Amino acid sequence: MSEFANIENTTICACATGNSSGAIAVIRMSGPQTMEILSKVFKPKKDIDLMTAPGYSLLYGNVMKPDGTPLDDVLVSIFRAPHSYTGEDSAEISCHGSHYIVRELLAMLTEAGAKYAQGGDFTKRAFLNGKMDLAQAEAVCDLISSETEAAHAVAMQQMRGGFSKELEAMRTNLLQIVSLLELELDFSDEDVQFADRKELQKLLDDSCSQINSLISSFKLGNAIKSGVPVAIVGATNTGKSTLLNALLREDRAIVSSIAGTTRDTIEDVMNLDGVLFRFIDTAGIRATLEAIEKMGIERTYYKIRQASIVLMMLDSTNPDGFEESITSLSKKINSNEQTLYILLNKCDKSSMLQGADSSKFDASALVEQVRVIASAAGLSPAAILPISAKQRVGLDVFESMLVASQKNLSAPGDMVLVSNMRHYTALKDAYNALLRANVALGEKVPTDLVAQDIREALYSIGTIVGAVSTDEILGNIFKNFCIGK
Amino acid sequence: MSEFANIENTTICACATGNSSGAIAVIRMSGPQTMEILSKVFKPKKDIDLMTAPGYSLLYGNVMKPDGTPLDDVLVSIFRAPHSYTGEDSAEISCHGSHYIVRELLAMLTEAGAKYAQGGDFTKRAFLNGKMDLAQAEAVCDLISSETEAAHAVAMQQMRGGFSKELEAMRTNLLQIVSLLELELDFSDEDVQFADRKELQKLLDDSCSQINSLISSFKLGNAIKSGVPVAIVGATNTGKSTLLNALLREDRAIVSSIAGTTRDTIEDVMNLDGVLFRFIDTAGIRATLEAIEKMGIERTYYKIRQASIVLMMLDSTNPDGFEESITSLSKKINSNEQTLYILLNKCDKSSMLQGADSSKFDASALVEQVRVIASAAGLSPAAILPISAKQRVGLDVFESMLVASQKNLSAPGDMVLVSNMRHYTALKDAYNALLRANVALGEKVPTDLVAQDIREALYSIGTIVGAVSTDEILGNIFKNFCIGK
Repeated sequence: MSEFANIENTTICACATGNSSGAIAVIRMSGPQTMEILSKVFKPKKDIDLMTAPGYSLLYGNVMKPDGTPLDDVLVSIFRAPHSYTGEDSAEISCHGSHYIVRELLAMLTEAGAKYAQGGDFTKRAFLNGKMDLAQAEAVCDLISSETEAAHAVAMQQMRGGFSKELEAMRTNLLQIVSLLELELDFSDEDVQFADRKELQKLLDDSCSQINSLISSFKLGNAIKSGVPVAIVGATNTGKSTLLNALLREDRAIVSSIAGTTRDTIEDVMNLDGVLFRFIDTAGIRATLEAIEKMGIERTYYKIRQASIVLMMLDSTNPDGFEESITSLSKKINSNEQTLYILLNKCDKSSMLQGADSSKFDASALVEQVRVIASAAGLSPAAILPISAKQRVGLDVFESMLVASQKNLSAPGDMVLVSNMRHYTALKDAYNALLRANVALGEKVPTDLVAQDIREALYSIGTIVGAVSTDEILGNIFKNFCIGK
Repeated sequence: MSEFANIENTTICACATGNSSGAIAVIRMSGPQTMEILSKVFKPKKDIDLMTAPGYSLLYGNVMKPDGTPLDDVLVSIFRAPHSYTGEDSAEISCHGSHYIVRELLAMLTEAGAKYAQGGDFTKRAFLNGKMDLAQAEAVCDLISSETEAAHAVAMQQMRGGFSKELEAMRTNLLQIVSLLELELDFSDEDVQFADRKELQKLLDDSCSQINSLISSFKLGNAIKSGVPVAIVGATNTGKSTLLNALLREDRAIVSSIAGTTRDTIEDVMNLDGVLFRFIDTAGIRATLEAIEKMGIERTYYKIRQASIVLMMLDSTNPDGFEESITSLSKKINSNEQTLYILLNKCDKSSMLQGADSSKFDASALVEQVRVIASAAGLSPAAILPISAKQRVGLDVFESMLVASQKNLSAPGDMVLVSNMRHYTALKDAYNALLRANVALGEKVPTDLVAQDIREALYSIGTIVGAVSTDEILGNIFKNFCIGK
């Protein structure tokens, strides 16, 4: 692990409280020279020797600039290895939240021998020093970016080791199988079967179904962490981007009345009443010869397949196009797995929707017309709603429906949910290896090949908690962390 | 002081680390129920009774949600009255920097009896509890927003009481005068003069000159704190807004080629190489009948008078307009107090500036022409430079000149600078009152009227440190503070 070889010799520092200015900022240090470096810049008010200050000391004092003028009055928390977040000697300097002070203090610390920390460096040290496993370390990052109660609960479960414990039980199980198989191998000349094959089969089946249930939890775990994927689809110029902007309450997508403005898919998350949604604006679908636009439409189809909820936009001022739009999109939607909403947009402009009282819309005929077409195309939409994305007419009602449809979107108390794509992929790899082992066991394939498959599964599971890890895996994981964590 | 009457009964809480998400966030509490409220939400790992935990304790533990699930693992710093920032029992909870956790934790604290703090509430308590005077409290806010070394030094001096000490000496001096005068009053029937009038005169003169030097320091102090004011002036459509954007490295001003786009003045600060400049884009000056544009031009003249540096923009593609522009602006500029730079903009487009080698500009003739016109108009510009704001040609050189011209812009070690408009106004009021007293003393006005003037001066000086203060003064001061400070 060359990249991390000299971790134990360096001391790192970073601002741990984000970039915006606040009343206070916290600068974090960790490494063997923490107290030595700290004592060069910080003078406690009380006569205390930093080199021998015990862990969990809280000290008030001054930071003086090299020219002897005061930089700030600060509070310093001292932590001693191994009783710290990283497992190393550490300190947290709480100073006034001024950009100038933070900049100068970090410069002084690096001048005194500390190195600027990269994103995730503190948590990486915690992992390498055995304070937490890799899945727990990743949960720290998820915890910080949690926006909803459910996402927080999933990350907290994982950070506290719930997921790791489940994986550990699985590993123990598989290790038992593999050691039985390998014992058999040692005596292979004697053609003895130590292991009861039926019992082995049972153990393997159990492991498979256990992994499978973790794999299945990813859809829920991912929706909780990254947002329920909602694809906004429809013909060009039906107002998809306007709807996205209205849902996000900002000008995220470029809106124009030129058909085909959105060529790429645009997505962003929004916390609606405690539920995180990932709204995906897609390229309008129309027959085109243009290569770039065709690519956009291909991507649209892919995004539709990924979505849990599909919002089909129709232009209520142009009912002639309904049948073609609904029929062509019906082929892309899986009614069993996806919830469909049909939105009749531009209802404020549609003359057909104006009743006798012009302030009210009478959309019942139009809604009925759409329902018939949808039904004929094999679709059963959860709702057909007249709206105006531009004027925000009908949107509050629609948002309430969306939120209500996801009211079960939470992690039940003790249930472990997989919410990380890396874990999901590793679990699928492990599952496939176990399936191979299972088949091989039934087909009387040589024992060493069966053992090899199970070892592969163990390896994949091991990558999740970091029992096996490489510089590359670690680099990929920690690059997503914020500085100072 | 009705607004603050119940401070000692309430306990406040706020996030003190700004709004951006970081690795950690700090939630601050202060007030008599701090430990009681804290003990409802926080369980230390070690078996410690929070109600009796000593000051400067650092505790690790959990925050549990009302439903019994964990919200976060946190570190808590305990402070005991009067040894805290506010002078009250206080605590700082260091949690993971997640918006969700911060929101929930604050909600739990308020549910348990704390109140959300308003901006500056902690520092206001520090002032009301006698931990600092008002000028020091205001310096806390300045310290946090300091962007440059000089601004930091001015705020630090003030926070540490340098300014207050000087004011205190002045108050002692004036109190001595006034008590002598009032002693005389008590014996007025006997027509006795206890005070040596010449000595009184001397004491008053000294106080006047002392206040006057503080008042004079405001120009420097304000430039350090708020930026050196630089007005960008010129005829419409010479590229003033483009220059502002180029100097600020962003799209702050709306730029278009329609003359008169900038109707209001736009200003923003920029830290160039450690010097803070306040660049002010002004409405282009041209004869107009439109009322709104006329108001913009009036404001332009006002901004020009306020500026330390004036950047006059000329369109080098239109030398015919030079004479009129320079002559009309020359009347608004005070050559003695303001530094003038003339910028020949759009040099990349000017055919006259293209030499034989088209990649080089030969501006010497044009520069000479401008120099002659400027000289005739009574102006002596510090430099006449061909630039292209749009292409950033010549801007680096120009910025270096600007920075070099302000290289003396720093607070000399021990010198106290006034940098706060409220202090400046109060000092001017005090000065005027002392001048009146001084004149009255010479004119043998009755002693009680002289004493009254000096009391007025004392009152004005007292408002600076908060020896006298009202709800309104305090409200105005602390509303500018950030939440959590």
